[in-house]
Amino acid sequence: MKTQTPYTELMNRARTVALLHSCSSVLHWDQQTQMPKAGAAHRGEQLALLARLAHKEATDPKIRDLLIEAESEPCEADSFEAANLREFRHAFDRARKIPPRLVEELARATALANEAWAEARAAADFAKFRPHLETIVALKCEEAAAIGWSAHPYDALLDEYEPGASTAELRTLFAELSAGLVPLLQQLADAKQRPDRGVLERDYPIDRQRLFAESAAAAIGFDFRAGRLDTTTHPFCSGFGPGDCRITTRYNPRGFHEAFFGVLHEAGHGLYEQNLPAARFGEPAAQSCSLGIHESQSRLWENLVGRGRPFWDHFFPRLRQTFPTVADVDPDAFHRAINDVRPSFIRVEADEATYNLHIALRFELEQALVSGDLAVADLPAAWNARFRTLFGLEVPNDREGCLQDIHWSFGGLGYFPTYSLGNLYAAQFLRAARRALPDLDDAFRHGDFRPLAGWLAANIHSQGRRFRAARLCERVTGAPLSVAPFLDALRAKLVPLYGL
Amino acid sequence: MKTQTPYTELMNRARTVALLHSCSSVLHWDQQTQMPKAGAAHRGEQLALLARLAHKEATDPKIRDLLIEAESEPCEADSFEAANLREFRHAFDRARKIPPRLVEELARATALANEAWAEARAAADFAKFRPHLETIVALKCEEAAAIGWSAHPYDALLDEYEPGASTAELRTLFAELSAGLVPLLQQLADAKQRPDRGVLERDYPIDRQRLFAESAAAAIGFDFRAGRLDTTTHPFCSGFGPGDCRITTRYNPRGFHEAFFGVLHEAGHGLYEQNLPAARFGEPAAQSCSLGIHESQSRLWENLVGRGRPFWDHFFPRLRQTFPTVADVDPDAFHRAINDVRPSFIRVEADEATYNLHIALRFELEQALVSGDLAVADLPAAWNARFRTLFGLEVPNDREGCLQDIHWSFGGLGYFPTYSLGNLYAAQFLRAARRALPDLDDAFRHGDFRPLAGWLAANIHSQGRRFRAARLCERVTGAPLSVAPFLDALRAKLVPLYGL
Repeated sequence: MKTQTPYTELMNRARTVALLHSCSSVLHWDQQTQMPKAGAAHRGEQLALLARLAHKEATDPKIRDLLIEAESEPCEADSFEAANLREFRHAFDRARKIPPRLVEELARATALANEAWAEARAAADFAKFRPHLETIVALKCEEAAAIGWSAHPYDALLDEYEPGASTAELRTLFAELSAGLVPLLQQLADAKQRPDRGVLERDYPIDRQRLFAESAAAAIGFDFRAGRLDTTTHPFCSGFGPGDCRITTRYNPRGFHEAFFGVLHEAGHGLYEQNLPAARFGEPAAQSCSLGIHESQSRLWENLVGRGRPFWDHFFPRLRQTFPTVADVDPDAFHRAINDVRPSFIRVEADEATYNLHIALRFELEQALVSGDLAVADLPAAWNARFRTLFGLEVPNDREGCLQDIHWSFGGLGYFPTYSLGNLYAAQFLRAARRALPDLDDAFRHGDFRPLAGWLAANIHSQGRRFRAARLCERVTGAPLSVAPFLDALRAKLVPLYGL
Repeated sequence: MKTQTPYTELMNRARTVALLHSCSSVLHWDQQTQMPKAGAAHRGEQLALLARLAHKEATDPKIRDLLIEAESEPCEADSFEAANLREFRHAFDRARKIPPRLVEELARATALANEAWAEARAAADFAKFRPHLETIVALKCEEAAAIGWSAHPYDALLDEYEPGASTAELRTLFAELSAGLVPLLQQLADAKQRPDRGVLERDYPIDRQRLFAESAAAAIGFDFRAGRLDTTTHPFCSGFGPGDCRITTRYNPRGFHEAFFGVLHEAGHGLYEQNLPAARFGEPAAQSCSLGIHESQSRLWENLVGRGRPFWDHFFPRLRQTFPTVADVDPDAFHRAINDVRPSFIRVEADEATYNLHIALRFELEQALVSGDLAVADLPAAWNARFRTLFGLEVPNDREGCLQDIHWSFGGLGYFPTYSLGNLYAAQFLRAARRALPDLDDAFRHGDFRPLAGWLAANIHSQGRRFRAARLCERVTGAPLSVAPFLDALRAKLVPLYGL
């Protein structure tokens, strides 16, 4: 008989849970990309079983003693081993605090809410979604109470997506971000030189879009021997585990930017997944650091690299060769078109500047919902009023207002802020990378994205969750997260483009 | 608290095991059709975990008491409930008789053997496979001993694929089958009017092959809202559960028959899967009856319907319209071409008549291997000698001889006979269907396959494993399985086609 240490037994248990989750990922991906419609009910049964088995394994009471034993052993600070125990403890305590009844009720409520949300959104009728959202908010408040919090109940929910982040620090970041964005947006709105995004809305045959986007994803380092690109209604990236990461997009034959920047975005997520420490698959510290850090990798490639001039110095001649429709377009006009900034109603279609105001709005409203300061019934009015202040636009209906996003229907309160965190981390990481690799733009102009990809893999991806996000940021960039790199980069790009 | 009867608890347990297996099916399908190459190792880990969990659930010692309790309750004869208990008992006893060590050793040996077989086959070098096959035969003999048998150890292995069948009855069937086939094949070989299969080996664009095959699969009743057709190296059918059945094929741009009859074959399997009793998913008696019955459904559509003249009276005009290359071919010549019968070395490429001699050969050799009358080392010589007798051909090398099939490398001794059983059952079922529905050929000529598909669904598919194969055959056809319907149908078709 070989004997296992408590630590190795914990790692084996973590691997089992991760493998079960990765089976679910395959089934989810298949459901979005391949499954015939009639298979939905059976797929639900399969996924429910896998979730039940994973939850049972993850909350096995025997883990408590194993953790106590393992924690009593000496362990090198900052090692993967120490991080594995920290993250195992964190996830176990969190999972055990939530009563199984609440887990079940949330699963049931969100399953119903998802359908109701889709109907309500289609009909632009908030009343259809309201009772479901009321239930979900109540259950999430119960969850926050079960987990416990000191400053704000929202902290307990945020922790699920961004471990270690606090509502208070996010409030500061969002205040600073808005303070920087609002005057910049005003400047851009008043500019006489406006981009013409019409060049993006010409004929772009889908098969060529696909080949062109694949070539860009491959150029930034997405490994197609260990991944693939498919078509779905809602684009996503799913890392199944070592050697298998799938990204998806959707194509508009009369719109270049949607699929192309979507693929760059998902390929950025994909690079992260493909460079996680494969040999440690399943260990709690071998997963991605947080949703904010994950999003930083997608937005870095999509916006900071992919909407930059050096990137297009390489790709624009290839774009022209692939799509005859842009033969008459000059690179400056194209670069302006892909950096068109203007207020709009829908988050997922927003430009990289106004995007953060969409998030700020949701972050404020979620806090108010969770603290009880805002009743679900008053949500549409609160949304519309705040939208008017932030964007200067009247929301025409709830479909283009508070019903637009799926997140609340699956109980994802606390999720939205990670999108903006991603923008901020991305800019701060790229600034650090530029310090270490001063010739990055030259490399981009030659179509060489390996130096940046290698730097990200070494400093961020391969570190998994060895450090929490705030600590990772300090180690990699030498400073705590701030809004300055993001705002600076945005100004540096947009001010000349708008002739300001 | 709701109380469960022992019976309902058993059914819930069976459903869990079936759901785990169905998750594995999705992962297997994905591996064959979608997975990037680099994902293979991780996929192996996922599948191993699911198999381990399913085996643990299926052999839980608590099942013993539940079975005893459930079996003591009164239960209507021939009901699904009675069949569920019979099949649960059968599977549980069988699984518990095989020591876990043997299960593990077989898993390990076959994993290694599969690679060795692929190499040995590519190199036509039996020596590379021999030690692996020796291990596998020894382990399968051990398995047969553990399970127990009275007449022949082969019975214990056969039972895994064809529950209730015996070596003795199969020997009789194969003797009768050969006695009928050998003179018929001699007659055909001497015929002056030989089919010209050249018309099948022209330009058949793959996209058109796909659409044409899909239209035929849909015409015979395969429901594409609950299924799909994809491309793989080795064609197969996988039913994931209610509402989701996937079939695959491979295309040869210079060969019509491979993909087309392959799709009809797999769609025949698919109809069975799509018409199993969905509400009972997971119950032991809600699965397919046996591999022989499953194969009867594929071969019935592929050979008895799909190579018949009424089928092509409907489809030939559509074939001509779809493939300009057959504009000059007349329907008689085409019908002869798809019914070309001639001895050949490779089983999977064999025509419907000689196919059974390929199976007879394997059935004989497997019995000899399992009884110890034939040493693995002597297998190639024994194969080649017997092949000469049966086919009158010299096997040029082991790739075209005893190394051609994958089955032994996965330990599938006892599997081959089910292919011929499928041919026999198919003919006997179709004869019974024709008695009940005398106008079948007229319906076929009008492209209407619903009467036959409905009859099969009602009499066979929806019955699942409520009856064992032999009993099902008697209930559906009024007689025990015999070779006469198969030989009669073959003669009735081929004799006029060969101008005899």
